[in-house]
Amino acid sequence: MGGDFGPEVTIPASLRCLGNNPNLKLILVGDETVLREHLGQELEIHQDRLSIQHASERVEMHDSPSRVLRNKKDSSMRVAINLVRDGVADACVSAGNTGALMAIARFVLKMIPGLDRPAIISTVPSIYGHTHVLDLGANVDCSADHLFQFGVMGAELVKVIENIENPKVGLLNIGEEEVKGNEQVKAAAKLLADSYLNYIGYVEGDSLNAGNVEVDVIIADGFVGNVALKTMEGTAKMIGTTLKQKFETNLLTRLAGLAAYPILKAFKAHIDPRLYNGASFLGLRGIVVKSHGGADQLAFETAIHVAEVEVEKDVTRRISERVESILASRK
Amino acid sequence: MGGDFGPEVTIPASLRCLGNNPNLKLILVGDETVLREHLGQELEIHQDRLSIQHASERVEMHDSPSRVLRNKKDSSMRVAINLVRDGVADACVSAGNTGALMAIARFVLKMIPGLDRPAIISTVPSIYGHTHVLDLGANVDCSADHLFQFGVMGAELVKVIENIENPKVGLLNIGEEEVKGNEQVKAAAKLLADSYLNYIGYVEGDSLNAGNVEVDVIIADGFVGNVALKTMEGTAKMIGTTLKQKFETNLLTRLAGLAAYPILKAFKAHIDPRLYNGASFLGLRGIVVKSHGGADQLAFETAIHVAEVEVEKDVTRRISERVESILASRK
Repeated sequence: MGGDFGPEVTIPASLRCLGNNPNLKLILVGDETVLREHLGQELEIHQDRLSIQHASERVEMHDSPSRVLRNKKDSSMRVAINLVRDGVADACVSAGNTGALMAIARFVLKMIPGLDRPAIISTVPSIYGHTHVLDLGANVDCSADHLFQFGVMGAELVKVIENIENPKVGLLNIGEEEVKGNEQVKAAAKLLADSYLNYIGYVEGDSLNAGNVEVDVIIADGFVGNVALKTMEGTAKMIGTTLKQKFETNLLTRLAGLAAYPILKAFKAHIDPRLYNGASFLGLRGIVVKSHGGADQLAFETAIHVAEVEVEKDVTRRISERVESILASRK
Repeated sequence: MGGDFGPEVTIPASLRCLGNNPNLKLILVGDETVLREHLGQELEIHQDRLSIQHASERVEMHDSPSRVLRNKKDSSMRVAINLVRDGVADACVSAGNTGALMAIARFVLKMIPGLDRPAIISTVPSIYGHTHVLDLGANVDCSADHLFQFGVMGAELVKVIENIENPKVGLLNIGEEEVKGNEQVKAAAKLLADSYLNYIGYVEGDSLNAGNVEVDVIIADGFVGNVALKTMEGTAKMIGTTLKQKFETNLLTRLAGLAAYPILKAFKAHIDPRLYNGASFLGLRGIVVKSHGGADQLAFETAIHVAEVEVEKDVTRRISERVESILASRK
């Protein structure tokens, strides 16, 4: 029910995903009447792999997480996460209110023992292909230990979903020299350097998209990571807008635009943010993927696909086992 | 002497600036032999407005600020800032080691009374034209009061250099709702809202380049601001690289690239980072402008021009007076 467009986007995306993956089963959670109306005959066509779970309420974008937690116990979001807790679903995908989704997920699913805080991770495009960044806003004021835990979770995720034996882990800082940064970052650097992780040191903001070194996982405080992600979106938007304006200046530039159209289209596809949609909540005892609220059909398909891969690779169990072995080695 | 290219860039840029502004006088600080060699006959040609101040040492990019402060008392950087302190120069422009420049500037020039910490501010392009962001890395772990002071300094600078009566001031956060953010940011929001400033509330990372609202000054902790600035650079670099690759795919795309060349050139000029070079150190009793280390001639010219405008608009006095009046009103 969530996101800027609700079932208008989530339902066509779901149907496409069912078509793409014959092993996928989907439970659509929300107002049954509305969902049935949008589905039409599709519900019957896909009856073996598609079902509806009714939920009488919905979380609005402006709802505060604490009030949702107390008062909207039959919201589509809450019901969907309950399904994950109860083992009825393997993962939950939502385009709704991030804060509410995180609060419900944390309350209902609980943390993996040994981890203090959940983190949000996403893939971002880079000149080397792509990289993964966490935390993107679940936490502010992260301690060194929190940052270290993000490294453990992020590296484990990337290891299994990308099949990289020893993912390169970088710590986001304001310089590459040892003296730079705040106390938490400096202390986290020590924890990371002394660990089993393939820690490559500090990286700067440009490493998210185009740094001097290739890096698979970038660790950041949620405040910093969120600002970086949004900045990236703003810069891409500004550049896209400016480029479009220049091609629309006059008849001549429009003609040149026609000639360049296939290239501009290929270029756009290459850095299309819709192909990077779907941020995962890590550290919880269950898989939850958050789609951008403004996601269109293709973007929402990507988010569902992120959940499919994480289920297939058994990400929650892998992270749990990794944390257990770290805790055991400390005893 | 500083930056990646030293006098090869700084001298041609200086000569161009002398040509552009008949009121400008420049003192080149550094190794006299090297500077004379690079200048050739130009020194004589511009003798009434161009001079050399010899300095026997130079700060390297890897030098630690504290060691530079103790041991390199005849570095070009130190000598240049001494000239500002002594009133021989109105401003100092450097492409050298940022940390060392800040340490020397703070030690030699001292803070404007009433301000706790200097901040680095720069102009960034946006879909609305451009905006100003501070702090870009002089400080980490900023308190609410520090953030408020950045707002005072930033607004005063923008007011005088852009001729905007009441610059719109935004506070960088990870959401626009009141509950979002860390304690420092929430407390700073209160200070800003209760002040004389034209505070428009929280802005997110995308507001640096392409937010929903127009904003003239964006306040951030130096860690966050620095990461945002570097992220912006990385995103722009990735997009530029990808675009270039797409146009260079084959003969057909190259031909299309030729047709689109004038537009791509105009586009590039519009977002050219060299036109946004020159970050100002605010809060000090003197004007210091830091050029990007990798600046080419055009970029370094821009940095010199930033200093020219700040001198002309008497920025240091304006900020001092503003702070004095705030302190007086609190008594």
